[in-house]
Amino acid sequence: MQSSETPSPPAGSQYPLLIKQLLLSPLTQAPDQSIVYRDNHRYTYRALRERIGRLAFGLQSLGVGHGDTVAVLDWDSHRYLECFLAVPMMGAVLMTANIRLSPQQLQYTLEQSKPKVLLVHRDFLELVESFSEVVRNAKCLLILDDEEDCTAAGGYEALLARSRADFRFPDFDENTCATQFYTSGTTGLPKGVSYSHRQIVLHTLAVCAAFAMPASQGRFHRGDVYMPLTPMFHVHAWGMPYVATMMGVKQVYPGRYTPEGILALRAREGVTFSHCVPTILQMLLDRADLDRVGLSGWKIVVGGASFPTSLASRAMEHGIDAFAGYGMSETCPFVTTSHLGPSLCATDDSAEAMTYRTRAGRALPLMDIQIVDEAMQPVPEGNHTQGEIVLRAPWLTQAYHMNASATEELWRGGYLHTGDIGILDEAGYLRITDRLKDVIKTGGEWLSSSTLEDLIRQHQYVREAAVIAVPDSRWGERPMAIVVATTPSPSSFNAAAIRNHLSDYVTSGHIPKYAIPETIHFVDELPRTSVGKYDKRAMRERYQHVRGPS
Amino acid sequence: MQSSETPSPPAGSQYPLLIKQLLLSPLTQAPDQSIVYRDNHRYTYRALRERIGRLAFGLQSLGVGHGDTVAVLDWDSHRYLECFLAVPMMGAVLMTANIRLSPQQLQYTLEQSKPKVLLVHRDFLELVESFSEVVRNAKCLLILDDEEDCTAAGGYEALLARSRADFRFPDFDENTCATQFYTSGTTGLPKGVSYSHRQIVLHTLAVCAAFAMPASQGRFHRGDVYMPLTPMFHVHAWGMPYVATMMGVKQVYPGRYTPEGILALRAREGVTFSHCVPTILQMLLDRADLDRVGLSGWKIVVGGASFPTSLASRAMEHGIDAFAGYGMSETCPFVTTSHLGPSLCATDDSAEAMTYRTRAGRALPLMDIQIVDEAMQPVPEGNHTQGEIVLRAPWLTQAYHMNASATEELWRGGYLHTGDIGILDEAGYLRITDRLKDVIKTGGEWLSSSTLEDLIRQHQYVREAAVIAVPDSRWGERPMAIVVATTPSPSSFNAAAIRNHLSDYVTSGHIPKYAIPETIHFVDELPRTSVGKYDKRAMRERYQHVRGPS
Repeated sequence: MQSSETPSPPAGSQYPLLIKQLLLSPLTQAPDQSIVYRDNHRYTYRALRERIGRLAFGLQSLGVGHGDTVAVLDWDSHRYLECFLAVPMMGAVLMTANIRLSPQQLQYTLEQSKPKVLLVHRDFLELVESFSEVVRNAKCLLILDDEEDCTAAGGYEALLARSRADFRFPDFDENTCATQFYTSGTTGLPKGVSYSHRQIVLHTLAVCAAFAMPASQGRFHRGDVYMPLTPMFHVHAWGMPYVATMMGVKQVYPGRYTPEGILALRAREGVTFSHCVPTILQMLLDRADLDRVGLSGWKIVVGGASFPTSLASRAMEHGIDAFAGYGMSETCPFVTTSHLGPSLCATDDSAEAMTYRTRAGRALPLMDIQIVDEAMQPVPEGNHTQGEIVLRAPWLTQAYHMNASATEELWRGGYLHTGDIGILDEAGYLRITDRLKDVIKTGGEWLSSSTLEDLIRQHQYVREAAVIAVPDSRWGERPMAIVVATTPSPSSFNAAAIRNHLSDYVTSGHIPKYAIPETIHFVDELPRTSVGKYDKRAMRERYQHVRGPS
Repeated sequence: MQSSETPSPPAGSQYPLLIKQLLLSPLTQAPDQSIVYRDNHRYTYRALRERIGRLAFGLQSLGVGHGDTVAVLDWDSHRYLECFLAVPMMGAVLMTANIRLSPQQLQYTLEQSKPKVLLVHRDFLELVESFSEVVRNAKCLLILDDEEDCTAAGGYEALLARSRADFRFPDFDENTCATQFYTSGTTGLPKGVSYSHRQIVLHTLAVCAAFAMPASQGRFHRGDVYMPLTPMFHVHAWGMPYVATMMGVKQVYPGRYTPEGILALRAREGVTFSHCVPTILQMLLDRADLDRVGLSGWKIVVGGASFPTSLASRAMEHGIDAFAGYGMSETCPFVTTSHLGPSLCATDDSAEAMTYRTRAGRALPLMDIQIVDEAMQPVPEGNHTQGEIVLRAPWLTQAYHMNASATEELWRGGYLHTGDIGILDEAGYLRITDRLKDVIKTGGEWLSSSTLEDLIRQHQYVREAAVIAVPDSRWGERPMAIVVATTPSPSSFNAAAIRNHLSDYVTSGHIPKYAIPETIHFVDELPRTSVGKYDKRAMRERYQHVRGPS
């Protein structure tokens, strides 16, 4: 019997995008694949699924229901991975607390997100107990612990041990909030961002496609062994644990980061794919030099701060396939990856290849990148004009938690404002030239602080360099460089040497003459934010009255 | 200023999944990549975008608006690819008419889908003009033509030539219908299925991930050159033109299929990735033998019918990396792909590797496969019990067009019923054992017709074989084999030889003794459906009264 109308969709055909679905293919295809935590634990995906079920039943027994928040304070662990899955899969919200924030900021974020349960590694127990109000509000505090009896009362393992494994994760609206965390922004209080199931599933699919489809360089595939080196509280370790889980690859969690621990785990477990900020990469290379350890066969995505070509070259010399990715807390985080195009190959260490490896890179599938001027008009195409990078994609945070004005500012004109200045070249590579707030406006022209930093760093005796804007009565602003010299460096090395070095780039046309800073200041260490980025706000405050050559 | 409530999502942060977004990354990253049509046309992705814009303006000028249907009758061409994109991107519905249906069936599907515009290749013009009612209803008929003056009035090229390129494709609800086509089912009238933008985008992402993430065998990557060998009216050429476009790879469209034309194009354009039904693969291998042409470096996904291991071995001998995919018109179509697991490598031609290459394969990401009994209960896990394959995924057709009862049957119990009988093994490989309607119920047991067919085909003098159920007063049903012998074959080759051959598999425990057919019938040709599958309904009708050994 046929009806003349097409029937409305039957119930089963509605398929909301939910994090639980990321487990479907690995559980049938790779149930015996390994997940490793430091030297302490090693289990299979099948066991992961069982523990996720136990965790969900356990949290339910503690009163966690749909929409409730569960906060985690932990190093990178298999337990954190279990929380990445079980908490949102049961319809609750996973709050990944940033343990690198100041105690006051951390307390603020926990107060605002109102967790019903706190899962806290023993290392942070004392800290959390000082947050009287938060502890009072949280229904329960569970201890994550490697060292002592895992099944001690009040512990995570005890909860799992007394719970059943066969939790049936329900279907619900794909726009349900899955995760929440706070950006450690250098200005003002931390701002809460959140991601829905739909957003995380779409980010996972698009990141998987972007990393799997390259012909060779930097690709992430089923044969890889994955280890995060970006903390799991930092934008879900860039979302990669979700990607690795969906792919069914072997996963290795390093706990608290130490260069020697990471290198030992990498060698023992055969890790081939990781991601980190430049500072971590530098620490690993230093340690590898010390220990005379080879690092070949390791693909590392570098992001979170600009990736100096000098560091990329050094990593390549160690046999690492290092290349950049670009994103931020508000973008889930991936926007672009700097996989090399077909004309450059994986082993190419030419200056051109290094340049492309350290650019922000090329857009993920579905990512709409626009470069706009201050009136939100697209800059002219193809002539290397810089402008602000604004975005649309199905995985960008939709709002800051309880902050309407910042949300309005973020989504001004219907696009997400990255606050980054950049150029999109003919091959689709995005190059970040500066942070909008770090750009130096001198004599009516824009100077890129990061370009200057990169050039200064290429001096053989410069270890690190930051460039900030300082007020100038004549030009509005002038660039000032703050430099850490190599140890040792010759006593003759001084500000004049750096200015001479920069003059060469003026001669070759890379920078205008007025880009050379009058003031170059030498320090032993550069101030950094809680996530290891240069703290330019602190530098601007400290150096705004410093004048003249130093 | 902070508010105490989290603000509702700003407009720009709503990002419906739309087909137009598949073009975002290739247009920035690979604007100069090639698209080739036979010997006639070669242009870039940039030109593709321009022509899509012209086509949309042109169709708009003919009165096509949001929700209107545009039907296409064409061979595989660059123009068809333009329609795949422009028609849904403007909010209209692309109806891909199945030119292999009988004239009556084709007319029925066109009458039911009510196109406002018909785009018809000159080869089908006469046929379409015989459909008086359809032509009367369609506002306009446009001619697709390779041979004559492309810009003749009433032609597709003339429409493009007089239209502007800068069409701005709007945002709309992601659940908007994008495509529609009719299944050529062997029973009853063709049934219309449709796919929304959301479904096609999600299928594209998941197929891209599934084909890109394997470590090596059968992977589809940015360096590949793509050519469809499944007609574009057949489930969007399995959705692969959308995947290839999103990846920004070189694409080659072969027009009307001829073995010599396909092989010449493959060689000239360096095609490395294709997909087809077994019949086409067999035609290509025959032609390659005749021409003594090597086919190495060609990855071919085989689906649409069971993939005999003998054919897979033959393809491998020609240097083709051939492996199966599984899906159907109702599933967009991909459900599984038979990429080899890590223990088997790309060049392995062992019997075990061949077995895995020809199975339906492993689930795509997000695909929920259940094997159920007649009461919709899951069969016991891990003991190779067969049952019906039922599915959930975000890209399954939600309804048959104007057919409530068939829709209800399709989605019985909240899962899509494939009508296929299968087994899911411990490694996650799905093996199709039969069509539910082709399974032979004899003496209370189920016999798989396709298993019997595969074993019979392994006899050296058997070219093709089909097994059907015939009524039997004692056993309910009995298997009957219909066989095409090789030419030449010895005169001694007869039904007894086949029964002897099958006896060996009884001895080795592959099949029970009662699986051996009493009746084995030799024919010159097997009846096939319009898409080249065995027409078992026709066979059952023809042979239901045939009895005894032949």
